[in-house]
Amino acid sequence: MSKISLLERRQFIKTFGAAAGVAAGAAVSGPVMAVSSSSVGVKWDEEVELLIIGSGFAGLAASIEATKRGCKDVHIFEKMPYFGGNSAINGGLFAAPGTPLQQKEGVKDSVDIMVADQIKSGRGIADVALLRHVASHAAEALQLTIDAGAEFHPYLQQLGGHSVARTYQTAVSCGAGITQPLYNECKRIGVKTRNRSKFEGFLLGQDGSVEGVKMRVGYYFGKDDSGAVKNIRAKKGVIVATGGFAQNVTLRMAQDPTLTSEVGCTNAPGATGEGMYEMFRLGAIPVHLAHIQSGPWASPDEGGFGYVSNYSIFNFPHSVAINCKTGKRFMNEIADRKTRADAELACRDSQGNPMPPILISSFKDSKNHPNTAKVIKYNVGWKFESLEDIAKHFNVPVEPLKAQINEYNTYVKNGKDEQFGKDMTKATEMAGPFTVVRLWPKVHYCQGGVKVNTKAEVIDSFSGKPITGLYAAGEVCGGIHGVSRLGSCSIPECIVMGMTAARSALSA
Amino acid sequence: MSKISLLERRQFIKTFGAAAGVAAGAAVSGPVMAVSSSSVGVKWDEEVELLIIGSGFAGLAASIEATKRGCKDVHIFEKMPYFGGNSAINGGLFAAPGTPLQQKEGVKDSVDIMVADQIKSGRGIADVALLRHVASHAAEALQLTIDAGAEFHPYLQQLGGHSVARTYQTAVSCGAGITQPLYNECKRIGVKTRNRSKFEGFLLGQDGSVEGVKMRVGYYFGKDDSGAVKNIRAKKGVIVATGGFAQNVTLRMAQDPTLTSEVGCTNAPGATGEGMYEMFRLGAIPVHLAHIQSGPWASPDEGGFGYVSNYSIFNFPHSVAINCKTGKRFMNEIADRKTRADAELACRDSQGNPMPPILISSFKDSKNHPNTAKVIKYNVGWKFESLEDIAKHFNVPVEPLKAQINEYNTYVKNGKDEQFGKDMTKATEMAGPFTVVRLWPKVHYCQGGVKVNTKAEVIDSFSGKPITGLYAAGEVCGGIHGVSRLGSCSIPECIVMGMTAARSALSA
Repeated sequence: MSKISLLERRQFIKTFGAAAGVAAGAAVSGPVMAVSSSSVGVKWDEEVELLIIGSGFAGLAASIEATKRGCKDVHIFEKMPYFGGNSAINGGLFAAPGTPLQQKEGVKDSVDIMVADQIKSGRGIADVALLRHVASHAAEALQLTIDAGAEFHPYLQQLGGHSVARTYQTAVSCGAGITQPLYNECKRIGVKTRNRSKFEGFLLGQDGSVEGVKMRVGYYFGKDDSGAVKNIRAKKGVIVATGGFAQNVTLRMAQDPTLTSEVGCTNAPGATGEGMYEMFRLGAIPVHLAHIQSGPWASPDEGGFGYVSNYSIFNFPHSVAINCKTGKRFMNEIADRKTRADAELACRDSQGNPMPPILISSFKDSKNHPNTAKVIKYNVGWKFESLEDIAKHFNVPVEPLKAQINEYNTYVKNGKDEQFGKDMTKATEMAGPFTVVRLWPKVHYCQGGVKVNTKAEVIDSFSGKPITGLYAAGEVCGGIHGVSRLGSCSIPECIVMGMTAARSALSA
Repeated sequence: MSKISLLERRQFIKTFGAAAGVAAGAAVSGPVMAVSSSSVGVKWDEEVELLIIGSGFAGLAASIEATKRGCKDVHIFEKMPYFGGNSAINGGLFAAPGTPLQQKEGVKDSVDIMVADQIKSGRGIADVALLRHVASHAAEALQLTIDAGAEFHPYLQQLGGHSVARTYQTAVSCGAGITQPLYNECKRIGVKTRNRSKFEGFLLGQDGSVEGVKMRVGYYFGKDDSGAVKNIRAKKGVIVATGGFAQNVTLRMAQDPTLTSEVGCTNAPGATGEGMYEMFRLGAIPVHLAHIQSGPWASPDEGGFGYVSNYSIFNFPHSVAINCKTGKRFMNEIADRKTRADAELACRDSQGNPMPPILISSFKDSKNHPNTAKVIKYNVGWKFESLEDIAKHFNVPVEPLKAQINEYNTYVKNGKDEQFGKDMTKATEMAGPFTVVRLWPKVHYCQGGVKVNTKAEVIDSFSGKPITGLYAAGEVCGGIHGVSRLGSCSIPECIVMGMTAARSALSA
């Protein structure tokens, strides 16, 4: 097989299997790939009640919810050797309205207000029914994580585009602060967690329903022929929670030719989109694939999500972002992600080369975040005594910079940002010493995916009806957020829709 | 079959055929639908050299080009009773650089300038290689239509977003001025033109290549069970030129929930997207489906493309668009389509209800377009002696309106628009009597579709390679234009890519 690529074989096997009338799902011997095919005549290697693909937020939440609802044979499959998927390395930020911390801090919020913020960021094309469904169950989803042992900082953050402070963050400032407790809970309640298992396609019944999957077990990431394909029947259905495709450079460049392999990405390497594309081959409706989000809080000085992302998310409300060419502010530091990413990408020299802007924070404020020590330690952020030192280090014109900071401080005093209309509720007067990081967007999140309804059912493009036996949850779905997703709204979506998928599967 | 819908049957037959190992493509008796399936064991009802689906600009151009290149058995299939598809009712506007009319009018233009205009309108995500391929062959494509007998107005227009005048328009101000001559040419050179024939799915060879199609012949639009399905082998390949999906309300709402059935649409009723979705089921990459364009030149006072669209496209350069609430201009009248459609959609009363803006033209200028008499005759445009009369009729504050027109006239005199930076090259002083139409965007064009390369080959999402035997051209393809397509750039794309698909199929 050495001269024929994996993908050619995949295509070959697909059509060969179908053409020859071979029981395409029969347990294959040797290194072959396959895609969805008929289950008729298939020898089932295994039968399970509920089969979940992907062990990020959505898959883990679905497993727990299904078990709570009485399902005693829940299996969660993960292609990587470790569990948690891309969720484990995300920022651990969780937005919900009407939470205990909002009550404690006296924040007035509601499902309506949160949905309205998201509609605005979605620029008119968000799926309001899905947003409302998620916001209505977000506090319940948060409680599910707390019940499983997740720990959060004792304060709320107000992230860009949110009209109030409604965002929890894990105590470890990272998604693993949720995936790890959820995984432990799965083990505790008897969910079968199965790593090194790669989804290879659906097995379809005569009525078009998803009856099971082909799963390559004993798989080693990067070794496509490793392990063996098993036919696994899923009596209650299959929940696809395989995440986005931000790490699939070919497919993201098909949507946006500027997102070459040289553009940074915060995602785990497994975020390559095969699950999503296999659902398109079944007839799922592709929605909003063109909307790929870059995180405006990322640093060009470190790989992936790194330490700076959470540092700057925490600091934006009381910090100033400066264009190094002009020494002036160039954006509302807490605008929505797309607004800020677009503004940062416009910071360039006269030849059009990137000039990453800097985020200046007062050390008295920044030191309250645990990442501050780390960004300085790892040399991806720096401490300066004065604005003059900053100007010298980053080659910023010093007088405009000093004038800008003075001007900003009057906005702080008056509670009104005359430049960009920033909400100054959490702003503080800027004073040395300062900490500074550089900013440059990285590919972070795919708003696009398969179309689902509020039952997490996957809709068929011809019939407009759900594909029986198939559910999807999390980033693999598309359309809910529209053009731009607000920060900290992905975790509630993943967990609520994972829970929803489990409920739908068990009540079908 | 009365209790089971067409689409349910479609789904049923798809999976039943596959499951039972039935030769899914065998000529079926009775009213059934099917989707793509294996060609092995299929009884071919007919064999042709080249099979083209869709008789709009792309399909017709492909037919002619293939015949010119020596293919003597070209078949073009059309599901409607009439030929020409949505192309026949479009505006008949054709942009090309380096044409005879540009030489005559002394317009300096080039492929580079045209591509640069399109990149700008595409907002960074257009496919530059495809744009360049089309622009490089646009003059040749224009000549193909002229050779077939198409007639054009003897002047060029400068459409919104184009930096120079480069747009031809058919003498009948409508796409039929091209489709009809191309169709006649097809008949003359021996292309087999077959109407009432509905595509039902591909037939795939063992190697995954497209070997032919299932075609429902004797089909009556709207009667899904009419006619009979035939298996047609296409020895040189299949070219899909089935157009966009602007008339499929479910699918366009999946991308943009605001595009309900109550939003107007300029397209022919057949623009429903089945060909595109069937290619997704084969594994084609969906690109930019979220980008659906509304035409800013449409009128809320008539159905479809109507008479106003071409009237206003012609008049925008020397006219003023007015917000009826304020009496003031609210956009550059020749900005790109998306910029203008968004600006018009923002014209609303205090309750958010639409307040369609008005386009005011001097009658001395507007009367040069043949549609002016028609818009007045059919009461979708009106002639007024004075601005006072306009203000009274449309309930516009009169003093701001008069001040605005005076102000605009100074811009005309100075050759510089201080309000919106409009290119004033073709602007003229506004003077009564005036003609006025109302503006409100209508869904017009789908930027999204299947990903193709500059050979019109369709790319597979798993392998990144072309699907053998399959080509696509025209609006069914996605990604070339990016976020917003410039006016008059669709016809050159359709014709160039249709010609390209024919060349690729014959040289494969």
